[in-house]
Amino acid sequence: MHIHFHDTLDHEKLPVQPAEWEAAAKRAGALGQGHVVTFSTDFDSVRDSVEVIIAPPYRLQQIDMHSAPKLKIIQSTYAGMDSLHPFDMIPKTALLLNNRGVHGKRAGEYCAMAILMLTNKMPLFITQQRNKHWQRAIGSLANRQRITIVGLGAIGTGAAGWARKLGMHITGIRHGDAPHPDCDETFPMSELDKVLTATDILLLACPLTPLTTNLLSRERIALLPNGAGVINVGRGKLLDQEALCDALEAGHLGGAVLDVFAVEPIPPADRIWTAQNMVITPHMSADDPLAYNADTLDIFFENLAAYLAGKKPPTLVDMAKGY
Amino acid sequence: MHIHFHDTLDHEKLPVQPAEWEAAAKRAGALGQGHVVTFSTDFDSVRDSVEVIIAPPYRLQQIDMHSAPKLKIIQSTYAGMDSLHPFDMIPKTALLLNNRGVHGKRAGEYCAMAILMLTNKMPLFITQQRNKHWQRAIGSLANRQRITIVGLGAIGTGAAGWARKLGMHITGIRHGDAPHPDCDETFPMSELDKVLTATDILLLACPLTPLTTNLLSRERIALLPNGAGVINVGRGKLLDQEALCDALEAGHLGGAVLDVFAVEPIPPADRIWTAQNMVITPHMSADDPLAYNADTLDIFFENLAAYLAGKKPPTLVDMAKGY
Repeated sequence: MHIHFHDTLDHEKLPVQPAEWEAAAKRAGALGQGHVVTFSTDFDSVRDSVEVIIAPPYRLQQIDMHSAPKLKIIQSTYAGMDSLHPFDMIPKTALLLNNRGVHGKRAGEYCAMAILMLTNKMPLFITQQRNKHWQRAIGSLANRQRITIVGLGAIGTGAAGWARKLGMHITGIRHGDAPHPDCDETFPMSELDKVLTATDILLLACPLTPLTTNLLSRERIALLPNGAGVINVGRGKLLDQEALCDALEAGHLGGAVLDVFAVEPIPPADRIWTAQNMVITPHMSADDPLAYNADTLDIFFENLAAYLAGKKPPTLVDMAKGY
Repeated sequence: MHIHFHDTLDHEKLPVQPAEWEAAAKRAGALGQGHVVTFSTDFDSVRDSVEVIIAPPYRLQQIDMHSAPKLKIIQSTYAGMDSLHPFDMIPKTALLLNNRGVHGKRAGEYCAMAILMLTNKMPLFITQQRNKHWQRAIGSLANRQRITIVGLGAIGTGAAGWARKLGMHITGIRHGDAPHPDCDETFPMSELDKVLTATDILLLACPLTPLTTNLLSRERIALLPNGAGVINVGRGKLLDQEALCDALEAGHLGGAVLDVFAVEPIPPADRIWTAQNMVITPHMSADDPLAYNADTLDIFFENLAAYLAGKKPPTLVDMAKGY
């Protein structure tokens, strides 16, 4: 097949390198052999023959995929599909695949950190340090806390695994209400309001879709118990950032650890930088450059194997659900 | 026996309450019955009859224990014995016991947090947030990092257990070189210099004694690899605070998470408050008020049982070693 990596090779977002492709192709055995492989952002030169595009969503947005007559597979190198909504740029004759699963291990460790930062009152201490203020406060063993994890994909599952090791009471919120091995109970999204009133730590790890936009609204923030904490490793627009800042400043919530924001980079004048008990990381929770591209390419080959066998590729994007 | 709690009942350091004693005595069965128990700071009124004193070290410093003729057991409600050095206030005829072990679980979770904060570059991000600066940086899976834990008592053991769950390479430094179930290797203190050169995260969890004062000196900080991180949950004077600030400001070290300091509370003018990539918590890593006093009293009863049976109490302080 003609497999085209639509990207340049030298930028900070760590594009797939030819050597990484070759290593993955070797791991894939026969499935990895006999392909024409191109690396460039010159779409005109590959348009007529390309069958597979592998690229990050922002690169996909820069090309007219409808103009490629042989295109069959679009493999995103990101898991989040929100920037491609409503998917009108995807030809009906092509399959859109993402790389969900690739973030689980790294993001799981970030979530473990964020949970422990909340049980240890780290957001308070970081705020106190900024004010050169020494005041003791008492943390809690994690096993006395109830965590609610919204979204049980690779990241939510990674988080749940650590919450289990910490002995927490774990409630999962997911599409449907199938049980999850590391959750004490699972509920569909419709039960969220009820669950929030009994949540010490709320962890958002779901995709951003029209259904999940502003999921943690001002009204729902008000449902959380006094002193509760919030973690967001999904997308910034899952929550009402202003309302979250208000709840922290008012002392209603005990702390927040956020890796994703409504606007990134956060503008210098945004109040979120200095909101009390707010901890900010620059959208890095799932980055793992030593493994990311290799894992993504392995996922691609799993998808390709399924496609060639006439089966549903494991990470096929459900455009109706939006992820 | 006459058991005297030398403390007041109402201060922020959570003194043992009569109800906590009664609950512990009940748990101890026959061993808990038949005692005369007093709670006060009026030592004159108990001096002639007291056989057991239970108190924090700073209270012990306020009384003349040599003047109590029947005193047999001194049970400290802290694990750290550094403030009692050189132990000249302890009568030769009495046993000094501490409550080591009581901090393991809570402090273990703090250490897990601190480790994950370092692998996730959290000290950098906290500094960036203070400067309203957004810049991505890449964390690492913990299993690519080598941790060295100095001191394998309850806290070091708790830390090692989490480091094991994180898949790290774990080196223990201890008095002697006995193996430890959660360490890949253990060395005596004399090997520390060699170990430091291959350490990504150094965790200090040992007692402060004349031998460990300034253990992490300026010279030893220089032995750590570029980008290494430091955690201190032992005592502030285990390390050279000025040299640590210098190493962070120079970019030699990647971050530090400290819970203990040379002077506490930290004076407002101390440069440590604003040193880059420095994270400060106010000596709270081992506090667990919901369990602390109960666990301490259970340790006391284990000690008492051993004493009455003519055996060595489990948490007898070795005054030669200093802990």
